[in-house]
Amino acid sequence: MQLTDAQRLDWLRLIRTEGIGPRTFRTLINRFGSAAAALDALPDLGRRQGKRLEPPNRARAEDEIAALIRLGGRLIATGEADYPHLLQQIDAAPPLLAVRGGAILNRPSVALIGSRNASTAGLAFTERLAHGLGQAGLAVVSGLARGIDARAHKACLQTGTVAVMAGGHDRIYPANHASLVDAILGEGGAVVAEMPMGWEPRGRDFPRRNRIISGLSYGTVVIEAARRSGSLITARYALEQNREVFAVPGSPLDPRAEGTNDLIRQGATLVSEVAHVLDVIGPLIERGPDADGAPARGRPDLREQLSFWDEIDLDALDPTEPAGQTPFARTLPAPCEDLEDPFEPDDDRTRIVALLSPSPIGTDELARSAGVGVRIVQTVLLELELDGRIERHGSGSVSLISR
Amino acid sequence: MQLTDAQRLDWLRLIRTEGIGPRTFRTLINRFGSAAAALDALPDLGRRQGKRLEPPNRARAEDEIAALIRLGGRLIATGEADYPHLLQQIDAAPPLLAVRGGAILNRPSVALIGSRNASTAGLAFTERLAHGLGQAGLAVVSGLARGIDARAHKACLQTGTVAVMAGGHDRIYPANHASLVDAILGEGGAVVAEMPMGWEPRGRDFPRRNRIISGLSYGTVVIEAARRSGSLITARYALEQNREVFAVPGSPLDPRAEGTNDLIRQGATLVSEVAHVLDVIGPLIERGPDADGAPARGRPDLREQLSFWDEIDLDALDPTEPAGQTPFARTLPAPCEDLEDPFEPDDDRTRIVALLSPSPIGTDELARSAGVGVRIVQTVLLELELDGRIERHGSGSVSLISR
Repeated sequence: MQLTDAQRLDWLRLIRTEGIGPRTFRTLINRFGSAAAALDALPDLGRRQGKRLEPPNRARAEDEIAALIRLGGRLIATGEADYPHLLQQIDAAPPLLAVRGGAILNRPSVALIGSRNASTAGLAFTERLAHGLGQAGLAVVSGLARGIDARAHKACLQTGTVAVMAGGHDRIYPANHASLVDAILGEGGAVVAEMPMGWEPRGRDFPRRNRIISGLSYGTVVIEAARRSGSLITARYALEQNREVFAVPGSPLDPRAEGTNDLIRQGATLVSEVAHVLDVIGPLIERGPDADGAPARGRPDLREQLSFWDEIDLDALDPTEPAGQTPFARTLPAPCEDLEDPFEPDDDRTRIVALLSPSPIGTDELARSAGVGVRIVQTVLLELELDGRIERHGSGSVSLISR
Repeated sequence: MQLTDAQRLDWLRLIRTEGIGPRTFRTLINRFGSAAAALDALPDLGRRQGKRLEPPNRARAEDEIAALIRLGGRLIATGEADYPHLLQQIDAAPPLLAVRGGAILNRPSVALIGSRNASTAGLAFTERLAHGLGQAGLAVVSGLARGIDARAHKACLQTGTVAVMAGGHDRIYPANHASLVDAILGEGGAVVAEMPMGWEPRGRDFPRRNRIISGLSYGTVVIEAARRSGSLITARYALEQNREVFAVPGSPLDPRAEGTNDLIRQGATLVSEVAHVLDVIGPLIERGPDADGAPARGRPDLREQLSFWDEIDLDALDPTEPAGQTPFARTLPAPCEDLEDPFEPDDDRTRIVALLSPSPIGTDELARSAGVGVRIVQTVLLELELDGRIERHGSGSVSLISR
């Protein structure tokens, strides 16, 4: 599959519409058949919800593409050959990925992440690990942050590294890592971003970015992490994406090891040598993807063991820089994954919502119970999905998301 | 059960006989009914093997008891009420334990062990852990060594600690820990030794001592340990004794964490807080012992996970002090757990050995196959057992130990 320029522009306008995130984008494409048709339907959908669903105009979208091209980048769509295979498998994969560099993106990769405020030992071990993984032929993915991330990128420039940005390509954060970006690209690595050009990263963009770091990778290695730090969010994403989770141990007296030691207690693989990563990742790469294209999983039981994850409330976490630093500027309106309550009640809708529960129910049965036509049920369900109120399951069944 | 003074003297003479260790002692008592009868049988048994099995004379044994009493100590025999319950359950429990102090010995306990050459952080964490376990009502067992051991003892003097010595009670090692021994005893703790008064500890006595440290305890916590260090032997004993194994993580760059990180990778419980020990040990203590008096086990699958243990060759390990220090003096002949080859061949014996294999076989069947009487088979089997050539199983069956 390869989009035409016109299709790519439609995709961009749709995903840049406030209130439409990757999941909703996917639902709309499935429902309407194309981004162009979905764009046509937006005003009507918005009216039904009492919301404005207003895509950016063509000129603005064209400007974004032109600006990206000036930086040597391009937009790659899900389904296109160049789109990173593993990233494509994750829930809520970015429909469009803004990429500078690129050939490396389909090399098998491992994410190395950790605290910005890293210890000397943590940095030294990061270097050893990144170097060793690079020598073994793996691309190393990280988040371009100070500390562990930057050291990981630097240690494997020659073998290839991928930086995932929380903001737009022209908003490198931290700003003094612009030369690191140049070095990464100069050595054949890649830099990727989900957000538009001009987007200053805000606190909430970092967890969102983290799902791409883990999603690009066979596994994520957490090198140093305090107990409620952003690195643990990446580990959580890795787990939800059915990828491997590794953690580097440390002294119980070092707060930067609290998060990693907890991960190990909960079942993450302890890493104290490069081989500990390769021993797990190597067979997965050799075995090739499962039937659905996702990486084969070494230890399918791990997720059950990691009860820990239930305790992380993603929303309660604040992965922003420590207090006292300049807060992120907001230059563009906030994107929301899902439209928010309250919704405009209407009779059909009220009746259908009352019939839904966290247990999945078939659409046909729902129509029968509600005494309305299937077409109306489908429309209400799409609205509820846009609201993030329901979850879709196999064979057309849906369930209410409990709040 | 309580030994008379005369019986205790016989036990002491029998266990102090060169060539007779705890396992052989048990076999002889079972075979002859008492230590006195076994002592009477020794010359004949020795002749059949071409070995001298010569117990110390009564005066020498009486001297040992008198010397121990002068230090305020006494000998406690397996089966006696004061003998530590958990130690009684282990394979090759010392038939006689020389004890100074003592009431604490039947309090639930945990062993804290680690490297002599400990890091500051390791020592600080030892202190925190020992203090917390003591406050929770547990006795802390350790080996009186420099580093982790000494810090563990000192951190819980008030709540009670048990030191296990590798040599005799009058041969405190290291010598400058004599005041620590006094402090332990002064605060109601205990010091125990398996070896006779006057025995200077040699390298091989330390692993032997380690089985008592783990055997006294519900679980063993390894705080810092290099990859092939003596602390890992204690962990191995704990595992073989069906006790819990805990390890404290550390930086992969710290050689003193290599052993503990390996343990964790293999399934030992990671400890970074006092609660991590109490959460495992507490329920075991509450649940009480199993039917056979051994502590109930929290995770019976652990042993299978710890494939690691197969790689430790106990004999290849050298837990002595680092090279360059004074070698241990040898003031008494070496005890051997088992008599060594070659044995004097004889016709019955040769025939019976040829019939044995690593698969257990019944004694009666063996007698039939060999065409000799059961009494002869029993005698040959006892010799083979003294040689460490066979292993006994339930319902009178035996198997050859492969070498």
